[in-house]
Amino acid sequence: MNQAFLDRVRIVLVNTSHPGNIGGTARAMKNMGLSQLFLVDPRKYPHDEATRRASNADDVLEGAVVVDSLSQALAGCDLVIGTSARERRIPWPLKDPRATAAEAISSRYQGNIAILFGREHSGLTNDELQMCHLHMHIPTNPDYSSLNLAAAVQVVAYEFRMLALDAPIEVGEESGWDMPLADAADVERMHEHMAATLASINFIDPDNPKQALTRLRRMFARIRLDDMEVSILRGILNRIDKTVAKIKAD
Amino acid sequence: MNQAFLDRVRIVLVNTSHPGNIGGTARAMKNMGLSQLFLVDPRKYPHDEATRRASNADDVLEGAVVVDSLSQALAGCDLVIGTSARERRIPWPLKDPRATAAEAISSRYQGNIAILFGREHSGLTNDELQMCHLHMHIPTNPDYSSLNLAAAVQVVAYEFRMLALDAPIEVGEESGWDMPLADAADVERMHEHMAATLASINFIDPDNPKQALTRLRRMFARIRLDDMEVSILRGILNRIDKTVAKIKAD
Repeated sequence: MNQAFLDRVRIVLVNTSHPGNIGGTARAMKNMGLSQLFLVDPRKYPHDEATRRASNADDVLEGAVVVDSLSQALAGCDLVIGTSARERRIPWPLKDPRATAAEAISSRYQGNIAILFGREHSGLTNDELQMCHLHMHIPTNPDYSSLNLAAAVQVVAYEFRMLALDAPIEVGEESGWDMPLADAADVERMHEHMAATLASINFIDPDNPKQALTRLRRMFARIRLDDMEVSILRGILNRIDKTVAKIKAD
Repeated sequence: MNQAFLDRVRIVLVNTSHPGNIGGTARAMKNMGLSQLFLVDPRKYPHDEATRRASNADDVLEGAVVVDSLSQALAGCDLVIGTSARERRIPWPLKDPRATAAEAISSRYQGNIAILFGREHSGLTNDELQMCHLHMHIPTNPDYSSLNLAAAVQVVAYEFRMLALDAPIEVGEESGWDMPLADAADVERMHEHMAATLASINFIDPDNPKQALTRLRRMFARIRLDDMEVSILRGILNRIDKTVAKIKAD
């Protein structure tokens, strides 16, 4: 986990109108392990609604640095990224959040990494966008691209965290499983037992005895059975055998 | 752009408390081009707060299907994914949102893909999680993992959209399968039948009735049963039932 990278990421909200969005941003940041929040000339701040929406991310909110101008928020940054709707008169380097995160983690950048989010309705001005090295566009539905501010921060923070994680989360039969995988010979004995038991309850079609058994074999072959599963299946077969034996004894 | 894939994604909110989260979910979905929303037993719905938070995504909200039980929401789905906090007593196949989306786009799945989101405070129950083929964990900060419900939907919908943008229309290795995958509702009925039958042959441990059933559910979840397999398993259960009935008749 590259927490040092996440510690260098600075979320900069420019001229935010709704204090609830500032709180929602703090929460989204903390969920993803970000901590640096800068507020450029917020309309209403501090504000109860910000505190309420921050939920338990009040440490991020309390650590927020309020400044008058964007250039103050960029001090100590060597990469500045502006979030942007796509169309600009002068095309600028533009990436999606994933490619932006990959760029930001490059070792050419050693300082803080600023990510600018603009006003709820009008975004960043052209002047502000021209202070950025790179523009980032979240690939929303073109028919409905009005991402909520905190939702946009959430998506971007998530991409940065995914990159900072050493390995994807994955639990499967290959790793992190709670039981050892079954020995092939044990599985084979289970199949033999199953064939005998299914015959004893007249499940096997006498005209095509192997059809169902083949399908059952293929079914179990698609996963790697673990020891406990084989023993559960053997337990079920034993119970069926005892039930059948009871009938015969009567 | 693989819109057909996004059209097959069904967001299922289970027992949501706050109508605002339902509206926020509709907005997050529409931003990313998703449209199928199912609501299982929502506490308050319809509700002004849902409509307000949906912003202009009211078409998604108006198209939402409200149902009483989770299994109704899973009809027509052949892949069921449950969002989950990480720790479970019995580990289940688990992936992050990116790997989950990659699994879901595989051509083995042709039906709808359900993604379940649980209650705001308590998530999905163990029984609900056991109806899933796969669990998905958003890799949040372990010290502060309380993602807002709509924010969680936003992140997941974003990953699915990112994949739909990149993906060639034809993907997958297992396209040559000879049987359609089973409908989740049919598999659920099979599990209920299995539980009853196993009780009738005294397989279930009275001290720990759910342990073996949970492991059987997990095993079948890994397999992704096809239609023929479900019918074979039902056939076996029917034969056991008849055998048991014969004993009782004697």
